[in-house]
Amino acid sequence: MASNPQAKSSFHMSPEEFREQGHAVVDWIANYYRRIESFPVMSRVLPGEIRESLPKEAPVQPEPFERILGDIEKIILPGITHWQSPNFFAYFPSNASGPAILGDLLASGFGVQGMLWATSPACTELETHVLDWLVTALALPGKFRSAGNGGGVIQDTASSSALCAVLAARERATNFEANRAGARQKMTAYTSSQSHSSIEKAIKIAGLGSDNLRLIEVDESFAMRPAMLADAVKLDKAAGRIPFFVCGTVGTTSSNGMDPLEEIGRVCREFNLWFHVDSAMSGTAAICPEFRHFQEGIEYADSYCFNPHKWMFTNFDCDCFYVADRKALIEALSVLPEYLRNKATESGAVIDYRDWHVPLGRRFRALKLWFVLRYYGIEGLQFHVREHVRLAQEFAKWVLGDKRFELVVPPPLNLVCFRLNASDEVNQQLMDALNRSGDLFLTHTKLRGRLVLRMSIGQTNTAQHHLEKAWERIQEEASRLV
Amino acid sequence: MASNPQAKSSFHMSPEEFREQGHAVVDWIANYYRRIESFPVMSRVLPGEIRESLPKEAPVQPEPFERILGDIEKIILPGITHWQSPNFFAYFPSNASGPAILGDLLASGFGVQGMLWATSPACTELETHVLDWLVTALALPGKFRSAGNGGGVIQDTASSSALCAVLAARERATNFEANRAGARQKMTAYTSSQSHSSIEKAIKIAGLGSDNLRLIEVDESFAMRPAMLADAVKLDKAAGRIPFFVCGTVGTTSSNGMDPLEEIGRVCREFNLWFHVDSAMSGTAAICPEFRHFQEGIEYADSYCFNPHKWMFTNFDCDCFYVADRKALIEALSVLPEYLRNKATESGAVIDYRDWHVPLGRRFRALKLWFVLRYYGIEGLQFHVREHVRLAQEFAKWVLGDKRFELVVPPPLNLVCFRLNASDEVNQQLMDALNRSGDLFLTHTKLRGRLVLRMSIGQTNTAQHHLEKAWERIQEEASRLV
Repeated sequence: MASNPQAKSSFHMSPEEFREQGHAVVDWIANYYRRIESFPVMSRVLPGEIRESLPKEAPVQPEPFERILGDIEKIILPGITHWQSPNFFAYFPSNASGPAILGDLLASGFGVQGMLWATSPACTELETHVLDWLVTALALPGKFRSAGNGGGVIQDTASSSALCAVLAARERATNFEANRAGARQKMTAYTSSQSHSSIEKAIKIAGLGSDNLRLIEVDESFAMRPAMLADAVKLDKAAGRIPFFVCGTVGTTSSNGMDPLEEIGRVCREFNLWFHVDSAMSGTAAICPEFRHFQEGIEYADSYCFNPHKWMFTNFDCDCFYVADRKALIEALSVLPEYLRNKATESGAVIDYRDWHVPLGRRFRALKLWFVLRYYGIEGLQFHVREHVRLAQEFAKWVLGDKRFELVVPPPLNLVCFRLNASDEVNQQLMDALNRSGDLFLTHTKLRGRLVLRMSIGQTNTAQHHLEKAWERIQEEASRLV
Repeated sequence: MASNPQAKSSFHMSPEEFREQGHAVVDWIANYYRRIESFPVMSRVLPGEIRESLPKEAPVQPEPFERILGDIEKIILPGITHWQSPNFFAYFPSNASGPAILGDLLASGFGVQGMLWATSPACTELETHVLDWLVTALALPGKFRSAGNGGGVIQDTASSSALCAVLAARERATNFEANRAGARQKMTAYTSSQSHSSIEKAIKIAGLGSDNLRLIEVDESFAMRPAMLADAVKLDKAAGRIPFFVCGTVGTTSSNGMDPLEEIGRVCREFNLWFHVDSAMSGTAAICPEFRHFQEGIEYADSYCFNPHKWMFTNFDCDCFYVADRKALIEALSVLPEYLRNKATESGAVIDYRDWHVPLGRRFRALKLWFVLRYYGIEGLQFHVREHVRLAQEFAKWVLGDKRFELVVPPPLNLVCFRLNASDEVNQQLMDALNRSGDLFLTHTKLRGRLVLRMSIGQTNTAQHHLEKAWERIQEEASRLV
């Protein structure tokens, strides 16, 4: 590269160089996936180590692309915890796939900003369409389809969907008074003690106060007790508070607990509460008819979300959020300054997704989801979801077959919660030793006050032999400890 | 592809196929950029047209990748409004570049989720580091650096940054009472009448009520009048309300108005108000020393944001958000469930970005920004920013040279607001005719009650001849109308 910028008329990458370097990056990624099992799953760097390898200030002169790409191998790779390794069993997965990555690459290439229909009609229409496809594919209620009063939108995460659901519910309950005058009324929300932390976060953000979020007790399967929900709602009403929102979960983060949507839904209907269903992880399972019983009662939901970026082979970020009444959502979030006015919007014939979430700008995220649905087909998705569930059920049997271990709860789908019959400390040591080894990565939670290990099986390339090897390693480390 | 899924043991794309198809997608994009000027800039499809070309339901059987990619050309391309065309002068740009697209591709390939330091240390550390680089590169106050009490984080958009700023301010002002008990106090916020709509949206979301947002009047350059701000604050205090937040703008959306940060900052300090500065578009200009005067007084800011995805050649989404006191932000947004606990977090030696924004999960967005900073170098970025500003100043001269037109306000940087000396209706017709022609795309706003056309010059590949051609076309259409 020239060292004298005056002599240059452009510092941009030409299409020709893009072609060449693009091939190099694609090759790098293909090669990364080929050797991914050779890396310790959890990064071993110490705090600050990556930063120490980086120059203190940004370069003044341009650097050749080859050198930048070279630093991916040298500097970045050691600091990666390999979410795409088939030996990744931690948290919930964030499983990617070739067609998703390439669909997303096209989105970057187009570089459109889909805040309005007019700013790229394909960006909006493909999104609406693919989210309608998923209503059928997952047997969701027809009211979530865009043809009626409902519709779907892609959000970044289930946290953002939860926030939007809370806001729409808040505005519906206050007749848009909260948006105008502030959230002054004593409103109360409900979710189970096992719900995701994002519900509490949403309640706080919305100015409603975590004191006004009731964490309803769960049963032995970690599912919300609907009778306790009804009692809590009645108590609040009697005290002059305004119950307005319930979040049910299909597949809680700790243990994959399944809230009874039908019974919760009936309580919501009786007391006119907005019913949001968070199915971030397990929603994908509904692609298989045999797993749809977990969402029985979903017809009661006012809003629903699940994350293709968790278990549907669509790289992060991609959360699908549905509402039965899009007007409630749009009116809660709409602002229309002059500089965004346009004929298509004013005709009312189009969707402008800017009013469906917090950000104004938006990326063309529907492309990657479209690519995944077409490349796999419904059959391909069913095949892999079934396989993950089968593997988890296998793993649970292995746990039951080794008397040193306890299966803490029967796994409904693809998350196995288990522990060594020993103290929390020993269980923690077991997990730390396994993770330190680099052979696999798993994480923990607390259930009934005890530390529990979680094997979350949903990484794209996890196959039976990975799980067998993982169980071997778990048994080995356990032998060393007890 | 096999039509009998039982016969297949995997529907995934192999690394080999990824390599082959990845090259095809890269070639498609390179080719797209080569012929981008041949498309009408604004898509001409009618509402519903894209959806009509799509099958009613998702395919059951897998489809070959070639067919999917073929539909990009056939179905998607006509519905694209070409944000990456050098003839795109609408809204604010969302300018991409080769190195950004390829950095983002690597982020998709790694597929890591950076919610915690531990979930991929490189994802967190590179982000912190690159945001520190930008503090120097843009001559931002040292208090935004991570080495002290501050720090930067990448958000999706300036709307989300505004929301986070409002939330941190709300919690600081109420001593975290709002998070706990709800936003019950009569709090008031301030911004200019020219501020971005996201400020009002943030105030509504936070449960504070748009009635409590004061839109302060602006002067003839569309900059906030600080004396009016001080008066409004005093009035609210006298009425027993709690002023808590001010948003100043460097480069408003309508006209690139520049709020006087120093004087606003002094008011904020006097009354202990959180001062957020939104420099979404114009922040990038500070890469050039000669444009830094617009951010004089930035030392008073408690938080600041600008969007590399607007003018720094980094594809959407990438907004850099800085706070002087990260504790205020983190405490406002933190939730720590058991399943996210880990040693690195508990050591206090690391940053966990999950507490810096609304979503929990996060993509490795620092990669694309790092690639841009290195590929261009500071000199390369300066060169192109200067060129865009020069072109805008040129354009303004052309407008001044044609008596049929009025330059509505002298352009501070790269946005030119002008109008034909005619009715709003005729100006609207002028814009519609130009946009319909496909030769360029520009949008409008209202200033002093009149419709004004905006030429926003910041697309990556916009060069002098594009602007000359655009001006020719504008003059041509004007001749037809008046």
